[in-house]
Amino acid sequence: MIKGNLLVGQSGGPTAVINATLAGIISFAQKKLDGKIYGMRGGLEGLLSRTDFIELSNLNEGQLERLKQTSGGALGSGRIKPGQEDLERALSYLKQHDIRYFIFIGGNGSMQTPLELERLAQKQGYELYCIGAPKTVDNDLYGTDHAPGYGSAARWLAQHTLDSGLDLYTMRGFDHFKVVEAMGRHAGWLAAASVLARFRPTDPPHLILLPEIVFDETAFLSKVESIFKREGCVLVVASEGVRDKQGKFLAELNAALNLDPVGKPMLSLGEGISGYLCQLVKEKLGLKARYDKPGTLQRGAACVSPIDREEAFKLGEAAAQYALEGQSGLMPGLLRMSNAPYRCKIVPTKLNQVVGRERIIPPEFLTSDGLNEAAFHEYALPLIGPALAEPMRLRSGE
Amino acid sequence: MIKGNLLVGQSGGPTAVINATLAGIISFAQKKLDGKIYGMRGGLEGLLSRTDFIELSNLNEGQLERLKQTSGGALGSGRIKPGQEDLERALSYLKQHDIRYFIFIGGNGSMQTPLELERLAQKQGYELYCIGAPKTVDNDLYGTDHAPGYGSAARWLAQHTLDSGLDLYTMRGFDHFKVVEAMGRHAGWLAAASVLARFRPTDPPHLILLPEIVFDETAFLSKVESIFKREGCVLVVASEGVRDKQGKFLAELNAALNLDPVGKPMLSLGEGISGYLCQLVKEKLGLKARYDKPGTLQRGAACVSPIDREEAFKLGEAAAQYALEGQSGLMPGLLRMSNAPYRCKIVPTKLNQVVGRERIIPPEFLTSDGLNEAAFHEYALPLIGPALAEPMRLRSGE
Repeated sequence: MIKGNLLVGQSGGPTAVINATLAGIISFAQKKLDGKIYGMRGGLEGLLSRTDFIELSNLNEGQLERLKQTSGGALGSGRIKPGQEDLERALSYLKQHDIRYFIFIGGNGSMQTPLELERLAQKQGYELYCIGAPKTVDNDLYGTDHAPGYGSAARWLAQHTLDSGLDLYTMRGFDHFKVVEAMGRHAGWLAAASVLARFRPTDPPHLILLPEIVFDETAFLSKVESIFKREGCVLVVASEGVRDKQGKFLAELNAALNLDPVGKPMLSLGEGISGYLCQLVKEKLGLKARYDKPGTLQRGAACVSPIDREEAFKLGEAAAQYALEGQSGLMPGLLRMSNAPYRCKIVPTKLNQVVGRERIIPPEFLTSDGLNEAAFHEYALPLIGPALAEPMRLRSGE
Repeated sequence: MIKGNLLVGQSGGPTAVINATLAGIISFAQKKLDGKIYGMRGGLEGLLSRTDFIELSNLNEGQLERLKQTSGGALGSGRIKPGQEDLERALSYLKQHDIRYFIFIGGNGSMQTPLELERLAQKQGYELYCIGAPKTVDNDLYGTDHAPGYGSAARWLAQHTLDSGLDLYTMRGFDHFKVVEAMGRHAGWLAAASVLARFRPTDPPHLILLPEIVFDETAFLSKVESIFKREGCVLVVASEGVRDKQGKFLAELNAALNLDPVGKPMLSLGEGISGYLCQLVKEKLGLKARYDKPGTLQRGAACVSPIDREEAFKLGEAAAQYALEGQSGLMPGLLRMSNAPYRCKIVPTKLNQVVGRERIIPPEFLTSDGLNEAAFHEYALPLIGPALAEPMRLRSGE
């Protein structure tokens, strides 16, 4: 058995399977560690404001299984970018509790914490093994084929796009234009997943707007008009972070923006891009327009992708394994081996390859003005679990 | 076998199980009717603008089963209030096609059509049996314990309130106040269902705002403040149709309202009550506020309540049975026999008891300033299918 205590924290926005990763870490450490397993309350902010940990060493199998099934971050989360002082204080608490293994579950912003804690510990000659475990519904992490949380959010968005499309076709003549707004500030992975709702070329989503593609108002309106002529209704899935030629968020053009604590515009607050597009289409084309803005519902919905949950758990186990083996500055990621049958293996990536970098949708999944749908379909389909059920249609061409 | 043709239509906003009712009607009529089964395209508007029907007589068992599983209205829907001329034209089409059985699946507004068609046919001495089949996520129909579509939407809203609450607790300190906006103009049944997400008294939803209870700003702010002090965050589920003392929709106070074709304000468009409450709480209490506005997603989500789908199918069968037995001016409804074990039986109601009347939440489910949660829980719990899974919590008191 390995000596020392382990501390695990959750960071950034939650997902439906971030607790599965936590369960994987606990489960692995329970078997190999001769020491305490602690949980950090409320992310790094929590660590800096109070030093009491949650002891996780004695969770039994049933509790771990329930944790694996529970959406949201059971430890609580935080969002600060730690400064030098924060890091020093954090490290002193870790020393106080003889923490030798530190695992932080988070996205590209959060990975800064394990990376910098490791550097500081090394400088101070304190033996500390720091590992990041990936999570984000945005799927914008380097070093992994996809991030845990993405598959479930993608499944949710695809299913709801399918349902929302059936709703819209039912009400054709009454509702004309609908936006389903997806999370995604710089990367359109989540909006792109809505393509999995399409069984026939004319099915919704009729248009997918990605942050990777500059918004062209004229082209957009002309596409909307011609789809409306053909279908009698238009369903658009839009990433919250789509920008115009000037680099302005469409969400900004609509209303005053809220800023988050680190000064980034909060695109998801207010009417955002949904309100902007509805207004545009109403004014320019005279169409009745509405939007669905599921907000945080899309990232934590209990209808998860089973494969996503399993991968999240296994990446947790791998993170704990790396740490307990005395590795540091790493994040376990997924490497795609094949699409059919779908197979990924877990491989380590250096944290400094991940920190602060956003992996937007790469060129092979894009065309000059949108998504390369066939290529993306192949990538995303295995991630959402069982394929969606094709609806029964009674009206031809619908 | 019974002679004559049957025409079935769908009307009003779709639900996740309105096609199950359609499948029940077709399934019953296939066995008993020696004539054609036709579907009306696009509701009454469709009937008035083109006379081609969709023939449903030959759907096989597999197709009916798929139809039963398909969200949205597969025939298309409409919303007009028929005038005298519309009714006369509709009846002349029915005569042209020798339609003797007319079934209209819809809510309280839609029931006007079968009721008035029956009267007109009688006046003209044309033998026509008209039956309404209930559906609405709003659950505001008289003559039935609950309306098909409600259980599924209620399940969706409860599950998402649970998930959204876990998300909010994860981000405490970052997000303070969140509104989940539910459909419901005059009746708060759907918002009320969010109470099924609560396992402990302090769990979200912390507040439920219903159209049945006048909004009291001072009381609301003081409740929000004290919940925030205790919990560090506040989750409110709000019906879109909540009003102030002057009888104004809070949604109206926020922004210019859109009107629908019959001149009713479209509460679900724009920021509505969500935007209003967020602004209020930001200004008066200085809390960070956001909202989730699932819009049409909540009424058509494929994660249905299995019991809701079964009841929808059986009510379809009953509607067809009434018609083919030569009954008219009726709607099959559900009568609750017991809560535990849950049991309802199907009983007929006169359509004139249903048309144009909105069944708001009755006094036994209300208190002076909100929902009688225990009583409502007992009513709503059996309708959503399997109970929600209780989350695993690691932090005490959370």
